[in-house]
Amino acid sequence: MFTAPASLSRESLQQEFASLRPVAGVRVGSAGAGIKYQNRDDILLLEMAPDAQLAAVFTQNAFCAAPVVVARRHVAAATTRYLLVNAGNANAGTGASGIDNAEACCKALGELTQCHPEQVLPFSTGVIGEHLPVDKITAALPTAIRRLQDNDWQAAASAIMTTDTLPKGISRSLMIDGKQVTISGIAKGAGMICPNMATLLSFVACDAALSRPVLQRLLQQVVGETFNRISVDGDTSTNDACVLVASGASGLPLIDSEEHAHYQALLQSVTEVFAFLARAVIRDAEGATKLVNVTVYQGRDVAECNAVAYTIAHSPLVKTALFAGDPNWGRILAAVGRAGINPLDIGRVNIDLNGVRIVSAGGRDAGYTEAQGQQAMARDDIAIDIYLGRGEASANVWTCDLSYDYVKINAEYRT
Amino acid sequence: MFTAPASLSRESLQQEFASLRPVAGVRVGSAGAGIKYQNRDDILLLEMAPDAQLAAVFTQNAFCAAPVVVARRHVAAATTRYLLVNAGNANAGTGASGIDNAEACCKALGELTQCHPEQVLPFSTGVIGEHLPVDKITAALPTAIRRLQDNDWQAAASAIMTTDTLPKGISRSLMIDGKQVTISGIAKGAGMICPNMATLLSFVACDAALSRPVLQRLLQQVVGETFNRISVDGDTSTNDACVLVASGASGLPLIDSEEHAHYQALLQSVTEVFAFLARAVIRDAEGATKLVNVTVYQGRDVAECNAVAYTIAHSPLVKTALFAGDPNWGRILAAVGRAGINPLDIGRVNIDLNGVRIVSAGGRDAGYTEAQGQQAMARDDIAIDIYLGRGEASANVWTCDLSYDYVKINAEYRT
Repeated sequence: MFTAPASLSRESLQQEFASLRPVAGVRVGSAGAGIKYQNRDDILLLEMAPDAQLAAVFTQNAFCAAPVVVARRHVAAATTRYLLVNAGNANAGTGASGIDNAEACCKALGELTQCHPEQVLPFSTGVIGEHLPVDKITAALPTAIRRLQDNDWQAAASAIMTTDTLPKGISRSLMIDGKQVTISGIAKGAGMICPNMATLLSFVACDAALSRPVLQRLLQQVVGETFNRISVDGDTSTNDACVLVASGASGLPLIDSEEHAHYQALLQSVTEVFAFLARAVIRDAEGATKLVNVTVYQGRDVAECNAVAYTIAHSPLVKTALFAGDPNWGRILAAVGRAGINPLDIGRVNIDLNGVRIVSAGGRDAGYTEAQGQQAMARDDIAIDIYLGRGEASANVWTCDLSYDYVKINAEYRT
Repeated sequence: MFTAPASLSRESLQQEFASLRPVAGVRVGSAGAGIKYQNRDDILLLEMAPDAQLAAVFTQNAFCAAPVVVARRHVAAATTRYLLVNAGNANAGTGASGIDNAEACCKALGELTQCHPEQVLPFSTGVIGEHLPVDKITAALPTAIRRLQDNDWQAAASAIMTTDTLPKGISRSLMIDGKQVTISGIAKGAGMICPNMATLLSFVACDAALSRPVLQRLLQQVVGETFNRISVDGDTSTNDACVLVASGASGLPLIDSEEHAHYQALLQSVTEVFAFLARAVIRDAEGATKLVNVTVYQGRDVAECNAVAYTIAHSPLVKTALFAGDPNWGRILAAVGRAGINPLDIGRVNIDLNGVRIVSAGGRDAGYTEAQGQQAMARDDIAIDIYLGRGEASANVWTCDLSYDYVKINAEYRT
């Protein structure tokens, strides 16, 4: 379980975004194709050096989008040179023609850049069930190619937004053997967030050199502790994809195993980047006013800790109470009780809210006052800590509250 | 799977409520104790004839309320004569003193009616985590006892309401061997509804004669097809309880096995009463504007049909689209895809919305128009039929949409 800082403000999202730095060996370029949004960029190219390595994880939703099908195929078939991302259309639920359209975009980019179509991975995010406007995308490709440069990560983060209210990106650097390694990453996503492999779209690049198997295992480990620990609404997307690129351009020696002397330092910084992006998605989640970290301790195993954490994170009653700033511990305890641990001795359960003990031994803590609870709930960052009193395992999930605006955004999304 | 009429309007709730009829051998009486609500009745007594039989099912939430603990104990220990119900306080999360308070109410009623405290079953519904005001309840008992009469089911249904906007009740009669049997039932509940045994509070009585084992099995079967098939928000309550009384006062012979000649006719009418009450809870659910029947066909087994039906019923994205009247089939398909069937061939999935084929073979149906979808969604009653193309099993769940008012009601509930 990765322990993140207790709070994450919108200001810190803006600060990290403002200090995004280039990654040697990687160029980004965006353009406006007018797919759904006008007067803004909505396609993004990410170009990798020829010897860069790439690892990717995708949604495990059985109903996965055409670009996910195509990207999975391409990543297995060839060395990736380009990521091609569009916002405003998910190219999901579009059947065989959706596959054809994703392939057509890859082919067009391949022709313009003299690479094989399989060296392009397509990514789409937006409305489900509408056909991808291939003509608009291919018409915008020359502009995006012309704009490719190493220092345009802010434009890149902005080009992939849908219902996001803030672009999300972060850079971290570390020194290894006197050389600087830089990691930069961006993410988008604000609803249909309950990743089961990766969340919506996130692209992270570093200039360290890693072998592809090590890079893929590193990505899976880090995603398991970051993006796979967040949920806005329990709705796993059809288009989730997360990519980690290692360009090797820092000139450091190749990391070809987890035993390599530099591996742990890199793992730590990469995890920090992913954890920031994952939590940034929740801070900017649809209608969210609170970033909530639900941590379950003292479970018999991680599975039951997960079950309790997700039951709380997905409870509409808990989430509306969080929105109201109401320390409604009864709803939290009721969610613990229905999480499927059978038998559960509720008399051993303790609950803290931002460090205030609200439930002791399955009932209201004797020393707890409503005023304490109100004060704890007034913060923008809420920690709900559950102690099951059954064992040593723990797990956490980051989530948000359920507000009027979540309903508004999702009731009006297609209009 | 019980097949209910396609629609259920608020008007039909009012009509059925208006024609509630007495059940011989059962008397009801209510009074105002001022627990949370003022200027209305908030406690209910239901008195059974000495030789009546009773069956009960309770929440399976591990965090169950004190009255559930006490009622389970009493129903096993003695022949029940009285149900004592209060609204406005759930007596949940109240520890040992909650148990003492529930017992104290039973004892007070026992003294006033010359019965043993274990012959009283307590039921509470309302706010979690506040101590039950025993004095207010016992002070109101003499009035409730004085008002006991056989024809006061409308007052009974009203006395147990919390966030309900309408009282819910229904009577059905059937002729058996030239004698009339009457079944009357009431229910309350509008939020924290995802019953896993019974929903919040429902009390049904008939004047047929059944042995207790047959009555208990009948109740469990019927609840499995009715109350256990509804969900407002996936939040299983701490206080769910459902009681079925058979007074025997009709004079008909005892039904002492499922093979009895009269059993099937009675089962059918009782099921009709329970199905009405269960769907009435959804029609009057917190903030709900739609009553939605999600039916999954062609699954390999009932378990996977249930998984798909509940995933759709609990998806905030599907529920907000329903609120908006938006035929957003992509969200439904995305929910099918994440329901845990692995591997699922999404290319075999068809979906109908109020009889309109919207998804064929995992994509938008070729003949489907947005206008058809809008028209289908304009109705108050929505049928979502999913065909998995995997087998012969089916299952359904009744649910509702997620509206601004759901958020409002649950954000403001304790204020």
